[in-house]
Amino acid sequence: MALLVEKTSSGREYKVKDMSQADFGRLEIELAEVEMPGLMSCRTEFGPSQPFKGARITGSLHMTIQTAVLIETLTALGAEVRWCSCNIFSTQDHAASAIARDSAAVFAWKGETLQEYWWCTERALDWGPGGGPDLIVDDGGDATLLIHEGVKAEEEFEKSGKIPDPASTDNAEFQIVLTIIRDGLKTDPKRYQKMKARLVGVSEETTTGVKRLYQMQESGTLLFPAINVNDSVTKSKFDNLYGCRHSLPDGLMRATDIMIAGKVAVVCGYGDVGKGCAAALKQAGARVIVTEIDPICALQALMEGIPVLTLEDALPEADIFVTTTGNKDIVMVDHMRKMKNNAIVCNIGHFDNEIDMHGLETFPGVKRITIKPQTDRWVFPDTKTGIIILAEGRLMNLGCATGHPSFVMSCSFTNQVIAQLELWKEKGSGKYEKKVYVLPKHLDEKVASLHLEKLGAKLTKLTPDQADYISVPVEGPYKPFHYRY
Amino acid sequence: MALLVEKTSSGREYKVKDMSQADFGRLEIELAEVEMPGLMSCRTEFGPSQPFKGARITGSLHMTIQTAVLIETLTALGAEVRWCSCNIFSTQDHAASAIARDSAAVFAWKGETLQEYWWCTERALDWGPGGGPDLIVDDGGDATLLIHEGVKAEEEFEKSGKIPDPASTDNAEFQIVLTIIRDGLKTDPKRYQKMKARLVGVSEETTTGVKRLYQMQESGTLLFPAINVNDSVTKSKFDNLYGCRHSLPDGLMRATDIMIAGKVAVVCGYGDVGKGCAAALKQAGARVIVTEIDPICALQALMEGIPVLTLEDALPEADIFVTTTGNKDIVMVDHMRKMKNNAIVCNIGHFDNEIDMHGLETFPGVKRITIKPQTDRWVFPDTKTGIIILAEGRLMNLGCATGHPSFVMSCSFTNQVIAQLELWKEKGSGKYEKKVYVLPKHLDEKVASLHLEKLGAKLTKLTPDQADYISVPVEGPYKPFHYRY
Amino acid sequence: MALLVEKTSSGREYKVKDMSQADFGRLEIELAEVEMPGLMSCRTEFGPSQPFKGARITGSLHMTIQTAVLIETLTALGAEVRWCSCNIFSTQDHAASAIARDSAAVFAWKGETLQEYWWCTERALDWGPGGGPDLIVDDGGDATLLIHEGVKAEEEFEKSGKIPDPASTDNAEFQIVLTIIRDGLKTDPKRYQKMKARLVGVSEETTTGVKRLYQMQESGTLLFPAINVNDSVTKSKFDNLYGCRHSLPDGLMRATDIMIAGKVAVVCGYGDVGKGCAAALKQAGARVIVTEIDPICALQALMEGIPVLTLEDALPEADIFVTTTGNKDIVMVDHMRKMKNNAIVCNIGHFDNEIDMHGLETFPGVKRITIKPQTDRWVFPDTKTGIIILAEGRLMNLGCATGHPSFVMSCSFTNQVIAQLELWKEKGSGKYEKKVYVLPKHLDEKVASLHLEKLGAKLTKLTPDQADYISVPVEGPYKPFHYRY
Amino acid sequence: MALLVEKTSSGREYKVKDMSQADFGRLEIELAEVEMPGLMSCRTEFGPSQPFKGARITGSLHMTIQTAVLIETLTALGAEVRWCSCNIFSTQDHAASAIARDSAAVFAWKGETLQEYWWCTERALDWGPGGGPDLIVDDGGDATLLIHEGVKAEEEFEKSGKIPDPASTDNAEFQIVLTIIRDGLKTDPKRYQKMKARLVGVSEETTTGVKRLYQMQESGTLLFPAINVNDSVTKSKFDNLYGCRHSLPDGLMRATDIMIAGKVAVVCGYGDVGKGCAAALKQAGARVIVTEIDPICALQALMEGIPVLTLEDALPEADIFVTTTGNKDIVMVDHMRKMKNNAIVCNIGHFDNEIDMHGLETFPGVKRITIKPQTDRWVFPDTKTGIIILAEGRLMNLGCATGHPSFVMSCSFTNQVIAQLELWKEKGSGKYEKKVYVLPKHLDEKVASLHLEKLGAKLTKLTPDQADYISVPVEGPYKPFHYRY
Repeated sequence: MALLVEKTSSGREYKVKDMSQADFGRLEIELAEVEMPGLMSCRTEFGPSQPFKGARITGSLHMTIQTAVLIETLTALGAEVRWCSCNIFSTQDHAASAIARDSAAVFAWKGETLQEYWWCTERALDWGPGGGPDLIVDDGGDATLLIHEGVKAEEEFEKSGKIPDPASTDNAEFQIVLTIIRDGLKTDPKRYQKMKARLVGVSEETTTGVKRLYQMQESGTLLFPAINVNDSVTKSKFDNLYGCRHSLPDGLMRATDIMIAGKVAVVCGYGDVGKGCAAALKQAGARVIVTEIDPICALQALMEGIPVLTLEDALPEADIFVTTTGNKDIVMVDHMRKMKNNAIVCNIGHFDNEIDMHGLETFPGVKRITIKPQTDRWVFPDTKTGIIILAEGRLMNLGCATGHPSFVMSCSFTNQVIAQLELWKEKGSGKYEKKVYVLPKHLDEKVASLHLEKLGAKLTKLTPDQADYISVPVEGPYKPFHYRY
Repeated sequence: MALLVEKTSSGREYKVKDMSQADFGRLEIELAEVEMPGLMSCRTEFGPSQPFKGARITGSLHMTIQTAVLIETLTALGAEVRWCSCNIFSTQDHAASAIARDSAAVFAWKGETLQEYWWCTERALDWGPGGGPDLIVDDGGDATLLIHEGVKAEEEFEKSGKIPDPASTDNAEFQIVLTIIRDGLKTDPKRYQKMKARLVGVSEETTTGVKRLYQMQESGTLLFPAINVNDSVTKSKFDNLYGCRHSLPDGLMRATDIMIAGKVAVVCGYGDVGKGCAAALKQAGARVIVTEIDPICALQALMEGIPVLTLEDALPEADIFVTTTGNKDIVMVDHMRKMKNNAIVCNIGHFDNEIDMHGLETFPGVKRITIKPQTDRWVFPDTKTGIIILAEGRLMNLGCATGHPSFVMSCSFTNQVIAQLELWKEKGSGKYEKKVYVLPKHLDEKVASLHLEKLGAKLTKLTPDQADYISVPVEGPYKPFHYRY
Repeated sequence: MALLVEKTSSGREYKVKDMSQADFGRLEIELAEVEMPGLMSCRTEFGPSQPFKGARITGSLHMTIQTAVLIETLTALGAEVRWCSCNIFSTQDHAASAIARDSAAVFAWKGETLQEYWWCTERALDWGPGGGPDLIVDDGGDATLLIHEGVKAEEEFEKSGKIPDPASTDNAEFQIVLTIIRDGLKTDPKRYQKMKARLVGVSEETTTGVKRLYQMQESGTLLFPAINVNDSVTKSKFDNLYGCRHSLPDGLMRATDIMIAGKVAVVCGYGDVGKGCAAALKQAGARVIVTEIDPICALQALMEGIPVLTLEDALPEADIFVTTTGNKDIVMVDHMRKMKNNAIVCNIGHFDNEIDMHGLETFPGVKRITIKPQTDRWVFPDTKTGIIILAEGRLMNLGCATGHPSFVMSCSFTNQVIAQLELWKEKGSGKYEKKVYVLPKHLDEKVASLHLEKLGAKLTKLTPDQADYISVPVEGPYKPFHYRY
Repeated sequence: MALLVEKTSSGREYKVKDMSQADFGRLEIELAEVEMPGLMSCRTEFGPSQPFKGARITGSLHMTIQTAVLIETLTALGAEVRWCSCNIFSTQDHAASAIARDSAAVFAWKGETLQEYWWCTERALDWGPGGGPDLIVDDGGDATLLIHEGVKAEEEFEKSGKIPDPASTDNAEFQIVLTIIRDGLKTDPKRYQKMKARLVGVSEETTTGVKRLYQMQESGTLLFPAINVNDSVTKSKFDNLYGCRHSLPDGLMRATDIMIAGKVAVVCGYGDVGKGCAAALKQAGARVIVTEIDPICALQALMEGIPVLTLEDALPEADIFVTTTGNKDIVMVDHMRKMKNNAIVCNIGHFDNEIDMHGLETFPGVKRITIKPQTDRWVFPDTKTGIIILAEGRLMNLGCATGHPSFVMSCSFTNQVIAQLELWKEKGSGKYEKKVYVLPKHLDEKVASLHLEKLGAKLTKLTPDQADYISVPVEGPYKPFHYRY
């Protein structure tokens, strides 16, 4: 795919797979709108006042149908938007083309190379000579990373004249990042510093991205305020848990058509994602085994009737392996060699390094047979048995299915909209320093309440007397900060 | 699609969508083989003795990957095979082409017209001048029907010279059947009688086909012996129940990406299929409502915490409607008009007449918007709200997903192989009259036992003393005929 | 307890533990009536016509609160009733005393010796000089057995003058039976033959009793007609399944207070009882392992995510063992010695011979520590570890808790009432021979329908057109005989 | 019951129901020890060093078998202990007598009057002339309350000579508290101040007690340090959730024998307790309805397929009502009047004021029929229908069953032991001010890890590289403070 920016008749830039899918994308966006009451409520509540008037928002977040509804909520509130995906496989091409045609500048397609991926990210951040975006919606932190690395390189260049050297790192992906920054330096040595100067803040979607932000906060290197959307209850306890409960079996079925009932499935990690996955597999009739490092999460698994063992214990009998840890080096090539023939190995946690893809790819004599895109059988030379890897080790729910369903993403994305509104409203006020913040509980509760009517729920109202008795306001928030839900 | 038979280089006839998908089909067939231990055991046990040597088998059964493994089990046992699908949407084109290329004559593709469908059925039955097949594998009874109607017409023609008149019926599909028979009469007035003469028997897969057979048995019109595979425990209590528990959510997710959690779902009918569907929806977090006519099944639903209401009661609040009844006129257009916007209506029971597709299609001013193949939004002119119909009212798990998974189909299809073996072995013995038979319990238990090792199970052995105590043979069968499991 | 019959002020015989509990019993009977809509409907429908006018009914069935409602339904329909329990631990003393005081002759208390047990059975059958009962309600077949053995002995005595010799058998319980018959012979050598002459028939409640009846039918020794109530769908698929799902955890909790979550539980047998037990344990958070001899039931367990192993495999890790097989010698003393300290061993299937109580009691040096009635810790001398046996190996739900709850027993007992009515109505008609019969399906469906309203259910009505389409009457029955539910 | 302190032969004070139950209590304590690995590990780890040597501990916490194991863990670590229950119905008399005989001074019996209850509390705090306890284990905060009120009264008395006037309050229970303080003032006007002076701190068990502590902290009136054990993850997410999931059905079954399957159950509140209750009821086959004030908890219920309605909506169809809110005035007498006949109303949340017991008791013409202790039917005069109240509106799992099972209480109580050890170790260090503290996460994780081996679990170990990657120590703690589990 030649990396050339195209333009709509109205002059908006884009780069997508196939513009002819825009009509199909539009139909699915319309269906999704009915399932995303939180976002649609934001349009109703905030649309008339156009709070994002004049704001430039860059998003780096899976370019799916659900994200399309998020983007068009931002534009409905007055924003200008540029978007890329945060995963090489997660773009839904019909969604990308509908948005590119109708609403925002999109640079995303399913099956990007890493080179293409970072090109898209850079395009999404590039608002022309006047600097970068005012706000970033980030997922995993790659947009944030690029700016931070860019600024670092520019400052180093100012100080010492040194330009970034891609050969200085072994990490193939980071080599690409350095190359982009290096090339940017040549055309504009203040490029990322101008971005930083303009940036009001970022709202970050996931555990992984949030962890990076807290590390930067701790080391004092965070360049702008950040809102941690991931730790809104209506995000982490919904999207991570119920989203994965839905999309893990969806991905398994679409990729392999395997009968889950009767199988032995190992879920590595029993955090929110692992809990959702284990629940889904158990309900579908699998015998689930969990691996954990944390004794509390382990004890939770046991209380649900799920044994906690090590991966080594489970290797000989398991049919399905799912990584959900947010850590690396979970399923190694030596594990894979000991698995049953056609054992399925997939990741729904974090990066593709949860599975030792590098070890697998470089294993002497290993043979890769692509059944269909995102479903590969890898055959070991000695045993002639094979394992099945989904989505090349990347997020299998996005690579093999369509990610989380609209309703639960409406919870997550309503948090995003509210976070963006808050950052933008307070842009000059000094309320937010270069730190990481979570949304206050009353906004978290608001996000939930926007999703109740669609499901036919009716809340009970506290009497003032009752509110007084438990020392909360009648209108909430109803729980202390540390409440665990 | 021009209805011309093609031929492989070896001279075998076929008509499929796209021969270039044969490699992909072969890869998926190889995966499925690992999941179908019953069929593979049959190959091991019976392959060497080639029991089907000389037998011609015609199959009319969803031409999927799983069926491909069935077909190649039949050929591995010595049979010659011709095949068509029993549903216009259920063919998997890559499976069809792999079989057409490698193993058997196939006439099937996804998305046949009714005209094409019956053309395929006739092709599968046409073994050339020497008459038809020796054996039929039927699903729903269409191959059986065609022969019975053909014979009836030929006998009438002999008697009275009358030829079948397609205009004599309102039923569009039956008009096609009569046209085929009429055209056949012209070329060979003994065509179907020759088929009947050769035919050893049929093994029938489903409830609907079985019902037709019993009706013919009762009216004395059944022309050859039939084995009712549907009522093997390892078929009806597995395929119908666990198969649908898997493939209903699979179809819903692939067709609509809707979040099932939180939704209200109505399952019409609580037989084996309904039980599987209700379990799947409940486990996915839906609130399930069941409609039933049978008080016993209704009480079973209640014992599982599922309310039993009428469809009318559930209309205003439900998001998903699934028909599983095996009856007709379950969800009528007047029901659909009262549903919520974007309510999903689908059928996993039987024919498309469970849903009033005719009423919908002919509703004045109704507008059909095809989101993607098998997923249509129908908008009513007065309310401007729409409902979403899956697979045009036909079996949604086959139309929108890939049908039941391999493992459970291995149970069903091992029954088919055993039934075909039995019919063929007894072809001259007079053991089977022109009646409907079920497989004896020890064969049913055998089918189950062939599937245990794959799932790591170990059976306990009765001691002779224990066997004596409960009055069963040590090796089984272990249950009386009427045992309900 | 001295075995003397007592009399109420009205002259009715009884022998119960403590008449002062009658008021408590009455209160619980009144609660149970609200939960037993099937029985109460029988009172409403049949009470006015007094169909049992003149009928003497003997019951041998757990003398619980639920049975009290059954007894008073029989008396409300005009019958005279005498009752004993069919298990030495299953009587609820307050129920027994309320019935003894108010409604029928009762001979039953919790904790009978075997001697006392058979004395009670004989009392319940003894209607004075005019012979025995007209009808028997039996559970396990002990009342039926006594008459059959009595008749056999009397005929032998007539023929050869030989009187039964208790020493002729090793079986301690059968020695008692023979003693009773021998003593009866001395006072009236036609005692049991007179009973047989009068008897119209028996309706039998359980799998075990039914098996005995079919064996007698087969050997031609059955002396009177029998209705197999156990195999009504509304009995075996409700009482056995849902009843045990409720009462197994109830018994475990009352007897041991053990936390089920996190434990490993072995369920021996996966029939209806085993399915209910496994479901209950799994839902409570246990890891369940099933043992099975039948490959079909084994495959069902696997489809629910439950591993199938042998008892030997499970010994080292399991905390709870439940026998549900209806067979003998399931958990032997050698198994028990290898269990974890304080493993719980209990039976909910059939007789106490599912567990090797004899082997345990006679194990050299074993020590029994009674924690409380029905909960014993047995300590092995070598390991000093112990296991916990519930209800001395007898039915733990009746011994340690209160048996099945009222609602599900209302299904079972409504079948009993209907069976008794049928036998009595047809007493002279010759409709029933000396064979075993099941109730026709329309009565089975009627039993179910009597229980729907209480749970707020609304059935859908077939249209005549729909009924015609599936070839059933509009009013049912809706299923063929072999339908498995 | 005359309120006279008795003494064991060794001179230890006590007041229990029946010393003859001590042997039975001892047997059950021994069983419980096997189920409480956390406490037994504490004995092994800390017993040799006798860290509580010289410490006086007063406990006010349900005097059950599980608490007995806690008490004997405290004494095994060197403490002297005095104990009372924190609920008038929760004492298990055999547990109380075994502890009174063998280990500690106990003042508790099942079915105390409120007068007796506070007498017991005062006895447990009275360590003789040298002041009160060094440490308090509190549940609900009544021991803490008595000291705070006592100190307040004494200070007021010093200042103004005013003595507390029981007539100054309408609250019957608070009148008793004031009476006790008043009478104490007369004998020793420094009694509670001396207690306060000696007290090192309190560890508090429940939500309700913790809330009181935070209120006192906020108002600056807290007199000594407090450790909030309730908010340890291994307490609130285990005891509240899994404990109630076990003990709610246990209580329902023991109290009413009702079949849960098929019933409609309303759970008021969907916090941890409500989640456990709803899960238990759903799994037992009930249709569950939740009422909630908090939109986030409401949305969680919906994601599990549980409808969220108001109590008013659910009144006409529900059979079982369970309050779990921690608030007051949840089920009012006007609600009860509109319920179905024999609807069950019970509380597992907090105090008896969740249910309007006062309104019920004073309803004109209402009639109370005691079925058995803790199970009352209340009949309304107009409708003649009744409802069934469990445990007089107090905690039904403790009143009608035996509370939470040993294993989950081992988690809670190991937190208590660790909290007490921490307070005692730091008694002079100034580490703890007059504030409320939670245990640090590494201790929380330790509690969990002490419970894994018993359930056969094996943890995975992080490599240093992995630990570094996610920025946690190899040995934990593994999660940030705000992690929700």
